[in-house]
Amino acid sequence: MSELTWKSAITKIEPNKISVRGYRLDELMGKVSYADMIYLLFKGELPSKNAGELINAILVSSIDHGTTPPSTLSAITVASTGAPFNAAMAAGILAISKFHGGAIEECMLILRQGLAYVKSDKLSYEKAAEIIINEYQSAKKRLSGFGHRVHTSDPRTAKLFQIAKKTGYNGESLKMAETFVQVLKQKTGKELPLNVDGTIAALLCELDIDPALANGFFMIARMPGLAAHVHEEYTRQKPMRKIHPTDVEYDGPDERNYK
Amino acid sequence: MSELTWKSAITKIEPNKISVRGYRLDELMGKVSYADMIYLLFKGELPSKNAGELINAILVSSIDHGTTPPSTLSAITVASTGAPFNAAMAAGILAISKFHGGAIEECMLILRQGLAYVKSDKLSYEKAAEIIINEYQSAKKRLSGFGHRVHTSDPRTAKLFQIAKKTGYNGESLKMAETFVQVLKQKTGKELPLNVDGTIAALLCELDIDPALANGFFMIARMPGLAAHVHEEYTRQKPMRKIHPTDVEYDGPDERNYK
Amino acid sequence: MSELTWKSAITKIEPNKISVRGYRLDELMGKVSYADMIYLLFKGELPSKNAGELINAILVSSIDHGTTPPSTLSAITVASTGAPFNAAMAAGILAISKFHGGAIEECMLILRQGLAYVKSDKLSYEKAAEIIINEYQSAKKRLSGFGHRVHTSDPRTAKLFQIAKKTGYNGESLKMAETFVQVLKQKTGKELPLNVDGTIAALLCELDIDPALANGFFMIARMPGLAAHVHEEYTRQKPMRKIHPTDVEYDGPDERNYK
Amino acid sequence: MSELTWKSAITKIEPNKISVRGYRLDELMGKVSYADMIYLLFKGELPSKNAGELINAILVSSIDHGTTPPSTLSAITVASTGAPFNAAMAAGILAISKFHGGAIEECMLILRQGLAYVKSDKLSYEKAAEIIINEYQSAKKRLSGFGHRVHTSDPRTAKLFQIAKKTGYNGESLKMAETFVQVLKQKTGKELPLNVDGTIAALLCELDIDPALANGFFMIARMPGLAAHVHEEYTRQKPMRKIHPTDVEYDGPDERNYK
Repeated sequence: MSELTWKSAITKIEPNKISVRGYRLDELMGKVSYADMIYLLFKGELPSKNAGELINAILVSSIDHGTTPPSTLSAITVASTGAPFNAAMAAGILAISKFHGGAIEECMLILRQGLAYVKSDKLSYEKAAEIIINEYQSAKKRLSGFGHRVHTSDPRTAKLFQIAKKTGYNGESLKMAETFVQVLKQKTGKELPLNVDGTIAALLCELDIDPALANGFFMIARMPGLAAHVHEEYTRQKPMRKIHPTDVEYDGPDERNYK
Repeated sequence: MSELTWKSAITKIEPNKISVRGYRLDELMGKVSYADMIYLLFKGELPSKNAGELINAILVSSIDHGTTPPSTLSAITVASTGAPFNAAMAAGILAISKFHGGAIEECMLILRQGLAYVKSDKLSYEKAAEIIINEYQSAKKRLSGFGHRVHTSDPRTAKLFQIAKKTGYNGESLKMAETFVQVLKQKTGKELPLNVDGTIAALLCELDIDPALANGFFMIARMPGLAAHVHEEYTRQKPMRKIHPTDVEYDGPDERNYK
Repeated sequence: MSELTWKSAITKIEPNKISVRGYRLDELMGKVSYADMIYLLFKGELPSKNAGELINAILVSSIDHGTTPPSTLSAITVASTGAPFNAAMAAGILAISKFHGGAIEECMLILRQGLAYVKSDKLSYEKAAEIIINEYQSAKKRLSGFGHRVHTSDPRTAKLFQIAKKTGYNGESLKMAETFVQVLKQKTGKELPLNVDGTIAALLCELDIDPALANGFFMIARMPGLAAHVHEEYTRQKPMRKIHPTDVEYDGPDERNYK
Repeated sequence: MSELTWKSAITKIEPNKISVRGYRLDELMGKVSYADMIYLLFKGELPSKNAGELINAILVSSIDHGTTPPSTLSAITVASTGAPFNAAMAAGILAISKFHGGAIEECMLILRQGLAYVKSDKLSYEKAAEIIINEYQSAKKRLSGFGHRVHTSDPRTAKLFQIAKKTGYNGESLKMAETFVQVLKQKTGKELPLNVDGTIAALLCELDIDPALANGFFMIARMPGLAAHVHEEYTRQKPMRKIHPTDVEYDGPDERNYK
């Protein structure tokens, strides 16, 4: 053991044996889902069936949002120069940042702060929300996770709530989030619903995922969408084209029902 | 419609409505898996239950390989400088390239070439493999996907074969791959088994995924592992430490059985 | 000395002493230019005064090309998401690739091939150019470095020729490049002048820089421009704006003369 | 003019005409240095001869620091996977961050705060330094730019001071920095000299460069070194090698004198 020896608690590699957090990878294959593996990697334990389902639903909800997000645009801009797949994907990842995806982590920190007031200081949910909202208002900062961004009634939000209820993850973090919506309305007169970032934030809090991993979680979720856009750029478009950020028409399959 | 108008067939964004390849995202949530969504994004249609299971198993098989891969090392090197999560992840993605992950795409192209000889030119599988092996031998090139890399008997390979059989995806591409192993043995006298890259290549061929997406598929699979290592770097290690590439000890949970 | 010991011939770091290619860095400071250092790092020796001047002129010629190049657009797209400076710069660098900047390396390889025919096979410059042009025409490939890209009479090209002449670097590579222009005209009837990429390619050949470094050279040259655009994005624009690729108006200083 | 029209004050592109901050690029070529162009791009005006010399010297001082910095290690780790030049360079850039290069910006902010106390609040240099040092000590934060990092007597620092004096840029920012060293010694009893990051910080303050550009400035300076290391990795090393962070031997030219 030299002075450079270091330790890692994630995956053990031995000849002909790979164990993730103690579980042999080949034993897990065919039995657990990719969503379960994220939970295992992030938290050290395998999730309950319900937790795995919830994570899977969050991943699906965030898998793509068309050509408008800056991550898509930076990825296809790089792809359009003839750069390889990994360079285009990296450019997409680099755009998932403070203002794009970053609201999830910020909102998680807000919700956790609110719950800390409730638990340590024995405040009511309303009082906790009020203190934080007041702080943000005097600092003239925006409360991440609340208010419409793209959709006035985001279909993903309603569905995530439904799945949270079904899986039993509609606990204190969701209650805290909904209390913020109420207190915001009382104080501002405005309807500032939990948006999709805020809903994911509340659910990651329910799952007790470290907020420092929220950005990584969103990147994981968005990778397949980015990959599809990069591939479409290579296969449908001319190199070095001028990429308009909004003047895009959808020409894929017509709307169809699942099943 | 201006001269900059362009088209995309992936995701349609309308107010309060998001449809991926024609399916409303909120209808899919709770019903399909992340693995299914990759198939939908890459191929335009939802997979059969079996295809979804196979994709999920491939993702799980590739989700992490500890601290040794250069993608992990470049990601934690960047994390160690205090760079944000997305910068570290991008540096990891940039290392998934020709010699790291790239064997999947190369092997897919070899298998497809072999099958083209079988189908268009009515050659036997053996003859097809022989022609390609001869080409590679005279060009002194290595056949990607064959021969041990890290493990002499990779546990992931055996399990992937088993799942391929169970899901009915042990078709012509796996047969082509196994024929290569036989012909290589006859010609070289050496055992050059299908390694994990070669096995994934054969299965992605079975699923008829475009080889140009193989690198992207591997990146998606590896993201949760990269995220866990980056998070561990931030939370366990000192900034700017010297990162030894092999002198690492595993100190996570002891081996344990699933269920 | 362990099995992991490796060697590097670039910079020697000792306590209180830094030597680049054998020269103490503090001795070079104040005496040589950044352009000279590039030559020293890339070739192992300090350049003549004239070579240093030529490199400096090439760097200045490529330092920025406004908002239109994809490297600028990907950099500011990432900056616009609130990502830090290094993430935005990396996204810019990732766009300097096959179709953006890549023509320099491709053209260098063409010119070197032409000169190889002249020197090894004792062909005339005309014959050498003809053979290569025929190859490209039958493969339906475009000869990188020839023909207008943005400007029909690029002011940088004329000036680079002038400086090449003044510094004595108007040798065989420039002659080879000009022969290509003549032979292209004879064969196609079209005027396909050496463009700025082709001119830089010829000059880097004159300086005997490894073509594998051409892409790196262009990135170095373009970094200050990218940095200025990223900084302008942070300081003048709102986060997450939609970035139009061509609808930009210049509002900087009016045209003015040097000195 | 549409709602997406935007403005940029950096470079104007017209047919056959490129002007940077109002100056025609072809007029500048052959007359100004790359260092001068950085000043023009960052500040909008061409520098005096002395300012250009000082910038050039700072660039030269930072051009490479061997294999030890994480930017070099992440760049060659990525290069070693067979990724292209731009991917390796981007990975290097991503490591130039808070703890690697970031001290320059942090120290600039400290020096500017000190000078703000001197100018607005009419405090002495000593009092200004004392207030800031007290703040940092009570927050248990380290003062960036002060104290040895690698070298106890950094040869670059001494030379930069000398060039600052020669070019007349040894003004209030250097005085502020030196006052910090004195007050730190009085308060801690320890010698915490201005290190190379702190010296560059003071000089960029003297040149009135925006601290938000300090990280970009360092990246520009380090690019040629990164490029040389990436090129060496491609040309001297085997793909996918294990890269030891410190066990490297220099085998370049022996020490030699300039001139």
